[in-house]
Amino acid sequence: MKPKFARESLTINTEVVLPNDTNHVGNLFGGKLMQWVDISAAIAAQRHCGRVVVTASINHVSFDNPIKQNSIVTFEAKVSRAFNSSMEVFVDVWVENPVTGQKTKCNEAITTFVAIDQNGAPLPVPQLIPETEEEKKRYDSALRRRQLSLILAGRMKPDEATELKALFVKD
Amino acid sequence: MKPKFARESLTINTEVVLPNDTNHVGNLFGGKLMQWVDISAAIAAQRHCGRVVVTASINHVSFDNPIKQNSIVTFEAKVSRAFNSSMEVFVDVWVENPVTGQKTKCNEAITTFVAIDQNGAPLPVPQLIPETEEEKKRYDSALRRRQLSLILAGRMKPDEATELKALFVKD
Amino acid sequence: MKPKFARESLTINTEVVLPNDTNHVGNLFGGKLMQWVDISAAIAAQRHCGRVVVTASINHVSFDNPIKQNSIVTFEAKVSRAFNSSMEVFVDVWVENPVTGQKTKCNEAITTFVAIDQNGAPLPVPQLIPETEEEKKRYDSALRRRQLSLILAGRMKPDEATELKALFVKD
Amino acid sequence: MKPKFARESLTINTEVVLPNDTNHVGNLFGGKLMQWVDISAAIAAQRHCGRVVVTASINHVSFDNPIKQNSIVTFEAKVSRAFNSSMEVFVDVWVENPVTGQKTKCNEAITTFVAIDQNGAPLPVPQLIPETEEEKKRYDSALRRRQLSLILAGRMKPDEATELKALFVKD
Amino acid sequence: MKPKFARESLTINTEVVLPNDTNHVGNLFGGKLMQWVDISAAIAAQRHCGRVVVTASINHVSFDNPIKQNSIVTFEAKVSRAFNSSMEVFVDVWVENPVTGQKTKCNEAITTFVAIDQNGAPLPVPQLIPETEEEKKRYDSALRRRQLSLILAGRMKPDEATELKALFVKD
Amino acid sequence: MKPKFARESLTINTEVVLPNDTNHVGNLFGGKLMQWVDISAAIAAQRHCGRVVVTASINHVSFDNPIKQNSIVTFEAKVSRAFNSSMEVFVDVWVENPVTGQKTKCNEAITTFVAIDQNGAPLPVPQLIPETEEEKKRYDSALRRRQLSLILAGRMKPDEATELKALFVKD
Repeated sequence: MKPKFARESLTINTEVVLPNDTNHVGNLFGGKLMQWVDISAAIAAQRHCGRVVVTASINHVSFDNPIKQNSIVTFEAKVSRAFNSSMEVFVDVWVENPVTGQKTKCNEAITTFVAIDQNGAPLPVPQLIPETEEEKKRYDSALRRRQLSLILAGRMKPDEATELKALFVKD
Repeated sequence: MKPKFARESLTINTEVVLPNDTNHVGNLFGGKLMQWVDISAAIAAQRHCGRVVVTASINHVSFDNPIKQNSIVTFEAKVSRAFNSSMEVFVDVWVENPVTGQKTKCNEAITTFVAIDQNGAPLPVPQLIPETEEEKKRYDSALRRRQLSLILAGRMKPDEATELKALFVKD
Repeated sequence: MKPKFARESLTINTEVVLPNDTNHVGNLFGGKLMQWVDISAAIAAQRHCGRVVVTASINHVSFDNPIKQNSIVTFEAKVSRAFNSSMEVFVDVWVENPVTGQKTKCNEAITTFVAIDQNGAPLPVPQLIPETEEEKKRYDSALRRRQLSLILAGRMKPDEATELKALFVKD
Repeated sequence: MKPKFARESLTINTEVVLPNDTNHVGNLFGGKLMQWVDISAAIAAQRHCGRVVVTASINHVSFDNPIKQNSIVTFEAKVSRAFNSSMEVFVDVWVENPVTGQKTKCNEAITTFVAIDQNGAPLPVPQLIPETEEEKKRYDSALRRRQLSLILAGRMKPDEATELKALFVKD
Repeated sequence: MKPKFARESLTINTEVVLPNDTNHVGNLFGGKLMQWVDISAAIAAQRHCGRVVVTASINHVSFDNPIKQNSIVTFEAKVSRAFNSSMEVFVDVWVENPVTGQKTKCNEAITTFVAIDQNGAPLPVPQLIPETEEEKKRYDSALRRRQLSLILAGRMKPDEATELKALFVKD
Repeated sequence: MKPKFARESLTINTEVVLPNDTNHVGNLFGGKLMQWVDISAAIAAQRHCGRVVVTASINHVSFDNPIKQNSIVTFEAKVSRAFNSSMEVFVDVWVENPVTGQKTKCNEAITTFVAIDQNGAPLPVPQLIPETEEEKKRYDSALRRRQLSLILAGRMKPDEATELKALFVKD
């Protein structure tokens, strides 16, 4: 299977925050944002592997700045690393000033998708080639996040998580 | 502020998976599940603190078993630990066999909410008292997850994450 | 078929009233409330009989207190009596004070569901055993309401409605 | 206040049953139908009184024939009788054969709406003049249904329900 | 195939503008209006030909008066002319003053639908007989609009558009 | 007011066609497509002028290829010409082959938006500078379409439409 570039999976989504998407202080609900994150990330993963993909885990999402009603929100999803059948996908969420057009980053979501066949069995996916500085940085740290996710899901013992361990133990 | 029991925040939500909630292999979208998780967790957090709450982060969600169209899905959200102004909330997601009524756990989501005032500034929340074995276990490990979240968000250095470090470094 | 307890069918649903769910004085639409009532009641009926169920009639719904936008609304549905293939289901609707957590009852809905097979033909359902005072009271008056419903649908003559007649004719 | 004709309130709504509106035997959900019934009836009541109206009660809805996905459903709502501040509204629900155009009646819903001012206090509404045979028949039986509704809501004693009593007691 | 009258296809739809349907100056979104226009026009076209229909083109929609939140909007769709397998459908959009009941025309949409078989191949449709003055006027000008649409889609050369040409060239 | 490049307004939207978005031969509804077209075009227009914009007219949309359920659809909206207070916006709609990633153009929509102030009065917008061949071609033909739209709306006489007239009259 021919490796693919990170940029080939880039998926852009531009949405407007409507009244029903906000809580009673007028900010976008976390759950609604997650729905847009998931759909953008799923399309990016599908663009990378050309297969049906399913969400395997949501690894981390931080809500740094509240997003107001009527905001124009842009989701940029890109595969950050491919493993055997799973792909880590980053989604950067930007809000745009309607007058100046200036974009501010509001959220960063890290998700994992798996390619499956008709029976739901995992399928191999192409390897990913990072090009930009950010793509390389995210590619490098993906293994660490994967070990973390496996530990949290109880599928790996801390001792086996060599990449992650290195964060805390500098010998 | 008077501490409150974990059970006082328990929020139950029962939903049915409709066609629009599923991908083209007929399984519930991760994003739709996250929307239900967020709303259940937000109500649980609000029940704990009696304040407006906003999603601060989604710490981890694993999608262990695909959920089919027409499934009855039950969300059980409960605050697992309270910090100064933030609360960690666990959401357990169950699917029910319509004939036998047997419930299977499909997902576990860990989220963090913050209580805010009218201007969006954080407000103190009551401490949480865990009672059951599971509540105690989740309470104890919450600090570790909090450190992890702060590291991932770049707000804490690995060296300062004493709770988390202990996982890897047994001296 | 083994009889089942009323409490085995209890279905709890917790929802938040969003802008689109309200009319222009800011109160929850009757139709949206009915949608939540129907789904909660359908799950309760399905939990009782373990079969596909369809709405047979909505017998009575009173809208006693208007429900405001952003309210947390809890639906508690429970089968009140089982007949041959139909089940009467009560749905109690509560609104919660977000600060004190105190619940106020806002609506009471009485609905009837029928268990069906793949061809839409009615199927027998288990009998219901009421336990609490309220369950017993609702069980006892169900027959009266059933006669009323049959009269309104033109399927029973007033003379045959012996239970109902007794309300008006005390001999 | 000048009385108005029943036909002046006639409200027609034509909808298509989409996948998300159906249960897993492919029939329209009772709750979704109720949402369309409520909106049609509310517009009819508003057309009669020229005021903001709110749902006071749903008195009876029978689901006689299942409605299939993709069906064209027509709702015809018309005020059947006006009281002081409340109006009874009938909604007849028809399904249309797409080839022959023939319409079949599937449901009949009886609802009550109240006209309110900005503070939610009830306002007087114009009296209704029935013209057709059906309008007259529905007008005449409305009082009986109103007593029934008051009894079910615990606001009237069976002894006071003279209209209703007459159904059972023929002296 | 027996010709049909324009009035036989008349489709009426009455909708209420909800918060989510409006932009941040409180007016109905053009896209939401188009959704209602399309569904009304599709039903009218289906009523004319008794077949599955698909949107072929949207020929022109003008947004003359902004429509406010909570407005009652009525869509009146009627086939204006039938060609071989396509039908031009006009949709008149009215807004109603809730107090006086007076209707104001807000939009006029001109759309084209095609009748298709199971494989998506076009099917012949009955001819249309206009009766009223407006029906006749729209019938007569339909050919001109059709030529225009074909030119815009690059399927006809201006020279061949004899009807349209006559508008500009009066010899 | 400083002129802006066409590319500065480019807005990309990637959507997935869900069951509720399709008719009963499984193709995307024209009305749902129009909703996505309108939102994409509105954002492009807002990006050009930095103001609140409202839909003024939908000039032409052709539905060339049916779009199937589960398709990934990409909307690319870009301002094609600016007039005093109105902007013509083209939206190109592409469908993507999930395996090969190849994109096919399915629709082309031409819409017009107007920049308004808080009272709904029109505001001047910056002029547009086309750069690519396609941008220039669309810029040049925009005046013709504008005249056409004014004629269809009854605001211009055919005789005054000099640009349009030239299409038919070659002297």
